[in-house]
Amino acid sequence: MANPRTKNDDVKLALGLVGPGLVGKALLDQMRDYLPVLRETRGIDVSVLGIANSRKMLLSDRAIDLSNWQQVFNEATHPSDLVGFRDHLLTCKDPVVPVIVDCSASDHVSDFYKIWMESGVHVVTANKKVNSGPLERYQAVRSLQKDRKVHYFYETTVGAGLPVISTIKGLVDSGDRIASVEGVFSGTLSYLFNNFKAGARFSEIVAEAKASGYTEPDPRDDLSGTDVARKVANLARESGLELELSDIPVRSLVPKELESCETSEEFMRRLPEFDGKMTRLQEEAARAGEVLRYVGSVDVAAGKGSVELRNFPASHPFAQLGGTDNIVLIRTKRYDPQPLVVTGPGAGADVTAGGVFADLVKLCAHFGAPS
Amino acid sequence: MANPRTKNDDVKLALGLVGPGLVGKALLDQMRDYLPVLRETRGIDVSVLGIANSRKMLLSDRAIDLSNWQQVFNEATHPSDLVGFRDHLLTCKDPVVPVIVDCSASDHVSDFYKIWMESGVHVVTANKKVNSGPLERYQAVRSLQKDRKVHYFYETTVGAGLPVISTIKGLVDSGDRIASVEGVFSGTLSYLFNNFKAGARFSEIVAEAKASGYTEPDPRDDLSGTDVARKVANLARESGLELELSDIPVRSLVPKELESCETSEEFMRRLPEFDGKMTRLQEEAARAGEVLRYVGSVDVAAGKGSVELRNFPASHPFAQLGGTDNIVLIRTKRYDPQPLVVTGPGAGADVTAGGVFADLVKLCAHFGAPS
Repeated sequence: MANPRTKNDDVKLALGLVGPGLVGKALLDQMRDYLPVLRETRGIDVSVLGIANSRKMLLSDRAIDLSNWQQVFNEATHPSDLVGFRDHLLTCKDPVVPVIVDCSASDHVSDFYKIWMESGVHVVTANKKVNSGPLERYQAVRSLQKDRKVHYFYETTVGAGLPVISTIKGLVDSGDRIASVEGVFSGTLSYLFNNFKAGARFSEIVAEAKASGYTEPDPRDDLSGTDVARKVANLARESGLELELSDIPVRSLVPKELESCETSEEFMRRLPEFDGKMTRLQEEAARAGEVLRYVGSVDVAAGKGSVELRNFPASHPFAQLGGTDNIVLIRTKRYDPQPLVVTGPGAGADVTAGGVFADLVKLCAHFGAPS
Repeated sequence: MANPRTKNDDVKLALGLVGPGLVGKALLDQMRDYLPVLRETRGIDVSVLGIANSRKMLLSDRAIDLSNWQQVFNEATHPSDLVGFRDHLLTCKDPVVPVIVDCSASDHVSDFYKIWMESGVHVVTANKKVNSGPLERYQAVRSLQKDRKVHYFYETTVGAGLPVISTIKGLVDSGDRIASVEGVFSGTLSYLFNNFKAGARFSEIVAEAKASGYTEPDPRDDLSGTDVARKVANLARESGLELELSDIPVRSLVPKELESCETSEEFMRRLPEFDGKMTRLQEEAARAGEVLRYVGSVDVAAGKGSVELRNFPASHPFAQLGGTDNIVLIRTKRYDPQPLVVTGPGAGADVTAGGVFADLVKLCAHFGAPS
């Protein structure tokens, strides 16, 4: 049966997903539900032809059935090989656009972007490691993007699905000058300080957050500020600064004495010893009519990034945060004195997967899908 | 002299600007300053080949010198003809991408989008009239966009350069469902109610806003709410509703008795007669710990849009607005219960022109410019 004419105009994506964890799973679910609509209404035809984690991979010559991928993946036995994974996408016979979506958090996976992009494979990522990792690797990816005309989308690396990266990009692309970017970039640390009010004990709020699933399994991974620093490094580079992660001073909230605790349980048991110190900071802020917030900042003129615990007056947008929301405040030549502010859930599988999915649709626009 | 190889890869835009008013002028200035950088770094080569207002137009076979366009335009004598304007862009010999940028606010100009797009001319607009005007015209433009694969960008039609339209588009494109969009969409009305506090007189704040240049020459054009209703119609359509502007009930702040004032001076002179009524509303809100805000809303489930004066508790994001800022609050299947919120200057020549410029760069991405 001949394809109707419009089918020949379809943009065909051969997609490989690396990292079928929480975000990857949510993305596969969203694609299962919405790809039929995109095919029908927009001529966007996405076939998932591979799924890989750190141990093994599933390769398929036909679009993997997204209502049943988990079972098929469970049965896969092929050891993970991220070069072979790329090669599989490149063997597709149709005129297709090869793209690898990285929903892992792996530094190892990040080392493959260069190899993928050199072969003309486009990359959409939720993984923060390239944009915040070694400048050399980052710049190699940027050069390939330009020289090989491959696309690289990473909206979700700051604020998940919130429009942060694309907003900064639009400003820079139109000749605006970023002056500063600052915000609360961790849902966990947002929650902790939004709830750290008079009478509260910091360690108890950490315990609550852990119980609610708002922290990493070891809360020190949040409290160390490293994840926030990665976002600051990423934003600094978007703003035109060439900063290494190590250039960014980070105020860790893990007491020195507890860094060496062997288990997160031991850490949590001993954390109350340091409540007094945190309470003093909270009270000091309250006396000035202010609140504590854990913020990441990029100051473009000073050429610096930082991650700090700072006081903000009650009228400041950061003081009005709720829940686990992120907030990003962008000042530019044009957005001055009033900044451009984006607020909302900046973590979570669904909104992150949604941001990745939106990046995929943007990628298709580059290959003729209607805007 | 042979062009260097990279020059052949350039994306070449043949651009015609309709409406060299405040926004159009700012755009030409921004392009004068930043196009050389875009050409060098991104291979984006934009030539402004025509400028038109309602009376006359300037057509040029070579890129108009943007440091001197005003003088050349002043000397132009060719009567405005928006079909001839299009034809001029289509006669360019190079393989160029023809685009018309509409920085007017004209309904008449909006009637030409269809004619332009039928010929394969792309449209970038800051003009709200098509997206909020008759559904039939709007849908014709949408059909052409799809069938002729022409592009249509209009980020600045709500909130100027704030990422509102693109954010909703990304959500819808990735299968999210918009539940509601509400916000303060008028810088003027934002200012009036942000400053309408205990002891203030509404008419005096209107007079201050007028003196500061925050209102239209006749403040009734702001107070009528029509401009807000246009944004609501636009957002409703982005959210999947097929609403006519006339389907949206609007709470006008122009007292019935003053609708017929012949001049804005007469209106301003008589406005204090109605201060008592406004003060009562303000006091009633204050007694409940609330504030008044003039908001536009789209309720997707109810299939409705509205423009109202409503009360909001002090903790609500709308209550925390300052200056002439806009705010947009988007609730979706994924952004629930916490919404996605964008705040910032939503009017002004520079940020609006910047948003139009960013749209132009996005258009270039569709023709091979690196992302």
